[in-house]
Amino acid sequence: MEVVQVLHMNGGMGETSYANNSLVQQKVISLTRPIIEEAITDLYCRTLPRSLAIADLGCSSGPNTLFVVSELIKVVEKLRKKLGHESLEYQVFLNDLPGNDFNTIFKSLPSFQKQMSCQMGPGAGPCLFSGTPGSFYGRLFPSNSLHFVHSSYSLQWLSQVPEGLDNNKGNIYMASTSSPSVLRAYYEQFQRDFSVFLKCRAEELMVGGGMVLTFLGRRSEDPSSKECCYIWELLAMALNDMVSEGLIEEDKMDSFNIPQYRPSPSEVKSEVLKGGYFSIDRLEVSAVKWNDYDSEFNPSVAFSDDGYSVANCMRAVAEPLLVNQFGDKIIDEVFRRYRKIIADHISKEKTQFINVTISMKKSGHFII
Amino acid sequence: MEVVQVLHMNGGMGETSYANNSLVQQKVISLTRPIIEEAITDLYCRTLPRSLAIADLGCSSGPNTLFVVSELIKVVEKLRKKLGHESLEYQVFLNDLPGNDFNTIFKSLPSFQKQMSCQMGPGAGPCLFSGTPGSFYGRLFPSNSLHFVHSSYSLQWLSQVPEGLDNNKGNIYMASTSSPSVLRAYYEQFQRDFSVFLKCRAEELMVGGGMVLTFLGRRSEDPSSKECCYIWELLAMALNDMVSEGLIEEDKMDSFNIPQYRPSPSEVKSEVLKGGYFSIDRLEVSAVKWNDYDSEFNPSVAFSDDGYSVANCMRAVAEPLLVNQFGDKIIDEVFRRYRKIIADHISKEKTQFINVTISMKKSGHFII
Repeated sequence: MEVVQVLHMNGGMGETSYANNSLVQQKVISLTRPIIEEAITDLYCRTLPRSLAIADLGCSSGPNTLFVVSELIKVVEKLRKKLGHESLEYQVFLNDLPGNDFNTIFKSLPSFQKQMSCQMGPGAGPCLFSGTPGSFYGRLFPSNSLHFVHSSYSLQWLSQVPEGLDNNKGNIYMASTSSPSVLRAYYEQFQRDFSVFLKCRAEELMVGGGMVLTFLGRRSEDPSSKECCYIWELLAMALNDMVSEGLIEEDKMDSFNIPQYRPSPSEVKSEVLKGGYFSIDRLEVSAVKWNDYDSEFNPSVAFSDDGYSVANCMRAVAEPLLVNQFGDKIIDEVFRRYRKIIADHISKEKTQFINVTISMKKSGHFII
Repeated sequence: MEVVQVLHMNGGMGETSYANNSLVQQKVISLTRPIIEEAITDLYCRTLPRSLAIADLGCSSGPNTLFVVSELIKVVEKLRKKLGHESLEYQVFLNDLPGNDFNTIFKSLPSFQKQMSCQMGPGAGPCLFSGTPGSFYGRLFPSNSLHFVHSSYSLQWLSQVPEGLDNNKGNIYMASTSSPSVLRAYYEQFQRDFSVFLKCRAEELMVGGGMVLTFLGRRSEDPSSKECCYIWELLAMALNDMVSEGLIEEDKMDSFNIPQYRPSPSEVKSEVLKGGYFSIDRLEVSAVKWNDYDSEFNPSVAFSDDGYSVANCMRAVAEPLLVNQFGDKIIDEVFRRYRKIIADHISKEKTQFINVTISMKKSGHFII
């Protein structure tokens, strides 16, 4: 599987789109907002730039895509006015893999920009948007060209399925029954990927530039901890049921693994310190319930069971990967079963996504 | 009609897509290539930049989209190696209106970038691509951030249908039967739009930065000259036939006008001199036959009549405008008739598109 080609959230605006099934991700952005605001405030006050280049990495396509950057710009505008400084030009780069639905984002931009300019009032500088397709495990921007980088719920995705997972049959991710070699293969892939990510961003950010990253992660030091692996184990259950009924070929199931790693805070910190490009301002953990949707925002889920929104959210995220491996005919059935399994699980246990957020600055002594 | 929302070339890769019907535009790029190459060579030798930011305005979606920028980069790479200079980072911005099919471009980028990096060989810097949706009759990029701007066959499109065309019934553009007030309304809209374009680009380009623009234009000083207007008059014939048969409502036809102006060299020059932001290096006129396709490149047109490729090219360009005004049901029939009319016309007269190309530099005395 070529992750760069295959991985993307479900596009469009339909029932199974990411745009309509990303309330959890929205909640996470709200939870981490104080950290993001603190970082951009600090950046502005330290550097007082005349133009501000911001990148959102793994922006996807939906209501969250423009939310963070618009909040960042509003914070800076408020500060600028308070301090009586001249207007800034904002340049925003929205990044995701080439399969992301950029067309839908771009079509929404004219009305969004109009609304932004109303909110910002007269005298504010232009907000200029570009989309940058490509993997963030490689260079995306010129050297020393960015002031601020944000990424939420994207960096848990690896650049590839780790090699050496041949003995992970019956599982599609790290699981309680996975061998130590599988756990090691996943961790080493995370280390390689995240160190490349840090090096690329260090090249692209100006000295003193800020970066806030939120991983879907875990609290525990145990990489097969239930809090990060179990949601995929439940999907494996649905798939294994279909294998036993002959609806999915066994060898397809055996060779399928999710290219994701949900790190602990100390694993994130360790890579940042190893790289030496950044100093850490904050490292925090937060949690959000699997079914933490607000039915006021999304009436379609108000009368459905607890498994519905979680299964839909996971479908919006994982469908392209599953279609690539198993074809599109089995998808509805997989998620029908997954929804039941999730609903059953939620009724018995406390279920949470764990978020690891790190705020950092590019160190002054790292000059290219 | 909101031109910003409605105007875009036909997306995708299908039979009526712009991607498959833009051989004339490709020919024009080949014709103007020496001027573009001269301009980028001059820019590189004068400024010897460590990074090079290039924008292609009105890039559309198809084989032409990446052709010009890749040629520009190859020219600079060759020069750099010849002069023994260090590698550059290339940052390419592909611009078009928000309705353009950016998804198709972005999906083709990974293989294109791989191919580029092979051709450029080891030691070459990264080529970083972004898409910038928005009208070029407004700001798209930060101040002093671009080195080079290219645009081909885009600037003849106006920001809006000129006001004051109420007395242009039976026509959809300037025509031999249009009144002087219609011709004036079109020309004044061109002047307003092009002066805004020049001001915005002057803000975005660095001092000394280069810009090469190719308009679909005319040689004659007569704005209703056949060489620029007749291709639209033939479309009006097809539409008027359908009005007379009751297939199109007359008031819809009466209120439809194409937001395009095809300027003469002296009209282009006059706006550039008026703005005062740029010095002119070259101003040239070239011509390309309406049916100047090469059947080797496009076997599907090899056995069809002369009207086929021209009608398809015009359809790829004008379909979204026509659908917006008349709905999509009449489209096939319009172009069936248009094709016949064009074929008949080509057999009787020499038919050419006229291209006006201008190469210029941002003047040193214009500093923001």
